[in-house]
Amino acid sequence: MCAAERDDGMTAARIAALLGAFRPGDRALGASELARRTGVPKSSVHRLTGHLVTQGLLERDGTAVRLGLRLFEIGQLAGRERGLVDAARPYLADLREATRNTVHLAVLEGTEVVYLDIVRGPDAPALPSRIGGRFPAHATAVGKAILAHSPASVLETVLAAGLTRVGPRTITAPGLLRRQLTRIRDEGVAYEREESGVGVTCAASPVLDATGRARAAISISGWSNRVRVERVSPAVRTAALALSRALP
Amino acid sequence: MCAAERDDGMTAARIAALLGAFRPGDRALGASELARRTGVPKSSVHRLTGHLVTQGLLERDGTAVRLGLRLFEIGQLAGRERGLVDAARPYLADLREATRNTVHLAVLEGTEVVYLDIVRGPDAPALPSRIGGRFPAHATAVGKAILAHSPASVLETVLAAGLTRVGPRTITAPGLLRRQLTRIRDEGVAYEREESGVGVTCAASPVLDATGRARAAISISGWSNRVRVERVSPAVRTAALALSRALP
Repeated sequence: MCAAERDDGMTAARIAALLGAFRPGDRALGASELARRTGVPKSSVHRLTGHLVTQGLLERDGTAVRLGLRLFEIGQLAGRERGLVDAARPYLADLREATRNTVHLAVLEGTEVVYLDIVRGPDAPALPSRIGGRFPAHATAVGKAILAHSPASVLETVLAAGLTRVGPRTITAPGLLRRQLTRIRDEGVAYEREESGVGVTCAASPVLDATGRARAAISISGWSNRVRVERVSPAVRTAALALSRALP
Repeated sequence: MCAAERDDGMTAARIAALLGAFRPGDRALGASELARRTGVPKSSVHRLTGHLVTQGLLERDGTAVRLGLRLFEIGQLAGRERGLVDAARPYLADLREATRNTVHLAVLEGTEVVYLDIVRGPDAPALPSRIGGRFPAHATAVGKAILAHSPASVLETVLAAGLTRVGPRTITAPGLLRRQLTRIRDEGVAYEREESGVGVTCAASPVLDATGRARAAISISGWSNRVRVERVSPAVRTAALALSRALP
């Protein structure tokens, strides 16, 4: 082993795999589990995690390691939309205050939405969404709101990947999705009724840049049998419009 | 240590330096700037950033690179207190709603507090604090709230590092800090009056674990000439007590 030249690229790939091996709910992982999840040989796991601990990207937790606070700090600077998250926070807080439901801020990445911020409301269901989490765009109100205000190529990418069913009423027919997106473009609000999961209803509105293209979307989510989305959708739309104006 | 292990360590150190080179406000950095900030030779910067782009940890932005959304996602899973942040969110939102001031959630790391969450209030000053940011613990209400409920060794570490002045009224005398911490332990609330900066006043209360040790603190921050901290401190204390009970 000593004779072989280590490839920077392989080391970078292994480090990325180790950092990416942690899942929500994991507290700390041992070398065996990391080796199993990443395919990196256990001896290399030991060596690399040692280096990453030295660099502060991982922290020791007994004989295991966990993601370090330094990664949280770096992560806060990451993502092209940091300014968006900071600017959106008061609008999300106000929307939660006004509706008592959970509010989401999301961006589109490929065929999925990524949640950049979530503020849970006292009247809302305990949704499994989490900040930094992903979900198929076509099955969410935020996803549809963004798709309706994106170039055609963006929608084609989503359709080409196939519209998987993730909830009782997920839209899986391309034609149906296209028609709904046209309506969303006219109204400025997207709805989701049990398309991402059972019993949940959402209303979302896009955050637009100066060219009218969606850079993100905000939504409120509530129990289908409790929230009247048509009644709260003006609040979502107002917040999205205000946030769009407030952004550079 | 053989050549391969030494190379791994250097590559890991360089990767950590590159990821850590980004500062708040940076959008994207070019190879020259990254080389300047990290001391990594420019050719190595090119090669390593290429690998990190392949791994999704960095993203290309023209000829420059920025921290990737993947790092934001990983960062969200990082830090020993992820459960705390998620559990605290509704309490912070409620406190903001009740006081209309900015609320902070922070933990102690060595001699500094790290802000894990911030929700800005409509009546509050535009504070420079940001999520993932750090600040000297002795000069903040959250820091003093945590120090007052931490083992003596924790305070000694802070005192040994020296109490730097960061605001007009920062406490720089160890005896004065000790006396204030004793009072904070009795009352359950810490105040900060222009100690972290001009014109700002805060009230904070610790989030305690089952042994009575502070694992974090929450605070509200407002303009010194507008907020009567004594009036809002019961709200902070109530929120902190409720959150302490809600945590496992």
